[in-house]
Amino acid sequence: MLCVHSPLHRGHAGTHEIYRGELVPCFEKPERADFVLQAFQRAGLGEVRAPDDHGLAPIERIHAPRYLAFLARVWDAWAAQGGTRDLLPAVWPTRGFRDDIEPDNLVAQLGLYSFDSGSPITAGTWTAALAGAHCALTAQAAVAQGARAAFSLARPPGHHAGTDFYGGYCFLNHAAIAAQAFVDGGAARVALLDVDYHHGNGTQQIFYDRSDVLFQSIHGDPRTEYPFYLGHADETGAGAGLGFNANYPLPAGSDNTRWFEALEAACRRITAHGAEALVVSLGVDTFEGDPISRFHLRGPEFTRLGTRLAALGLPTVFVLEGGYAVAEIGDNVVSVLQGFEGG
Amino acid sequence: MLCVHSPLHRGHAGTHEIYRGELVPCFEKPERADFVLQAFQRAGLGEVRAPDDHGLAPIERIHAPRYLAFLARVWDAWAAQGGTRDLLPAVWPTRGFRDDIEPDNLVAQLGLYSFDSGSPITAGTWTAALAGAHCALTAQAAVAQGARAAFSLARPPGHHAGTDFYGGYCFLNHAAIAAQAFVDGGAARVALLDVDYHHGNGTQQIFYDRSDVLFQSIHGDPRTEYPFYLGHADETGAGAGLGFNANYPLPAGSDNTRWFEALEAACRRITAHGAEALVVSLGVDTFEGDPISRFHLRGPEFTRLGTRLAALGLPTVFVLEGGYAVAEIGDNVVSVLQGFEGG
Ligand SMILES: [Zn+2]
Ligand SMILES: [Zn+2]
Repeated sequence: MLCVHSPLHRGHAGTHEIYRGELVPCFEKPERADFVLQAFQRAGLGEVRAPDDHGLAPIERIHAPRYLAFLARVWDAWAAQGGTRDLLPAVWPTRGFRDDIEPDNLVAQLGLYSFDSGSPITAGTWTAALAGAHCALTAQAAVAQGARAAFSLARPPGHHAGTDFYGGYCFLNHAAIAAQAFVDGGAARVALLDVDYHHGNGTQQIFYDRSDVLFQSIHGDPRTEYPFYLGHADETGAGAGLGFNANYPLPAGSDNTRWFEALEAACRRITAHGAEALVVSLGVDTFEGDPISRFHLRGPEFTRLGTRLAALGLPTVFVLEGGYAVAEIGDNVVSVLQGFEGG
Repeated sequence: MLCVHSPLHRGHAGTHEIYRGELVPCFEKPERADFVLQAFQRAGLGEVRAPDDHGLAPIERIHAPRYLAFLARVWDAWAAQGGTRDLLPAVWPTRGFRDDIEPDNLVAQLGLYSFDSGSPITAGTWTAALAGAHCALTAQAAVAQGARAAFSLARPPGHHAGTDFYGGYCFLNHAAIAAQAFVDGGAARVALLDVDYHHGNGTQQIFYDRSDVLFQSIHGDPRTEYPFYLGHADETGAGAGLGFNANYPLPAGSDNTRWFEALEAACRRITAHGAEALVVSLGVDTFEGDPISRFHLRGPEFTRLGTRLAALGLPTVFVLEGGYAVAEIGDNVVSVLQGFEGG
């Protein structure tokens, strides 16, 4: 399996985030990608190559121009004010507030375009996120050109980023960008499956009123689990998208039997959708040892996940999302990919 | 002039807030009210008395029941989890996220009901805010019963709090609660004038679709000044409230001539409205020496403000809002009240 990877991810290295109201060291750190890369190479799964430059056009198919402009300029604007530390929002528009006017104030811009204070913007954030989008697009292109599957190994992750907001460590929604590239390449129906522990709220928001991209997410119940405000079972799409969004919220601590029942339901739906391509938001924070999540998957379960996805028989792009047990993240990702290759 | 005050405000004493992305000591601190009380008494302006208990009913006329229930229980729920430090939100619902389901998670509840991370909730926050609402209601009752004016000297302030959200150091909107009490007492038309440096976004949100309460605010331009996402000149009300909301955003650093032109326009409009009563959100962070604001009012200007308000000839309730130059806050407030008494 082709793996697309860029070392530019290292430029996104936050020092701290606000987690449950306290400043703590970042969970989402460069070592995550390094460990996945090492495990991929150790397993001899295939070629690793750098992304092609696909430009901004395919990214603008998903994200709003003013949001992309903000991400591209915010660090330089901050530095021009003499700022040096990581940028975190502190005020945001809630119910009844306006979002049509972009304030001149930098802190206010941060709040306009974000939904949490756990996602620091640093000097290299835009470059890293952009490289990640190009990794996903390069993987998608390989699959569109005939590869059975490809793996986009990038960070920061993407599935919490929406049309015009970041959060949950995510800035550009790489999986959504890849799914859109399939559509723009002529696919009438695409499936996007999110198996990260956390609901793919950004991806859902992006495709909520569309019928061409079926979005499904298996995740911790948003009543108790981050990102909280989306991911309930009654969110089934809107307008033309009604019936093309499916959430499988599971109580924190759910056992693996329950998790695989949800996977089975999601896979059947992908088949029923008549999907021509599959994009997988591959988070492995479903791992039993993850420090911020509460499911119980281990190696054999990750392999089983890959095997089941392979049985769908679809051209498949894997996009790396979460997973914060750094020492094990590589093995867990590789287990999924090996399961897929052997399935 | 009667001053209504309760020492319960002291229970709201946050240690830190997030200001422009950094943890800093709270600007909104108990000494603020102490200095105002001392100045009021030193000036011999009138009686100081404790608030009557007006219960929750007049507060529920402004704030949503689930929001009040949240404020009333949140600290105890936090303590039951072993929490001891001030509560600040870290994740919030942005565009496309749901607010109809209250998450079980405490941090998620904080985000659902707030718009900034500068407003710590402490053990005594609810008690202090509730006492502040009763101060405003007691002042309103005195005026409704014939007093020319009364002053509600309480903190935390209120004008940034909306129907179901807190922020900007505010939890219950005391001025809105007082204005509503005039309406519920039979007034057909009430004017609420906000002269704090910061836009009264909560008050605007509360009355935006109503014609009985004319809301006007003179404040720093939200393009550059907190709270950023409301307070533009084109916000004139909606539905039945169209034409009953007026904002006077002034560039940071505006001179006093410009400020008093805005005041004059607002006063004329109050007269045109045919208001039967006036509530003033009295922030004195318009003071030249305020640490977080950029207008240039000083003692003579505060006196002139009071004089102009007196000329409206309306039964008037003053409600204390912002003002963070602690050493001067008392004198500045007293200058307004003396101007009113002499006017
Ligand atoms: Zn995750
Ligand atoms: Zn203020």
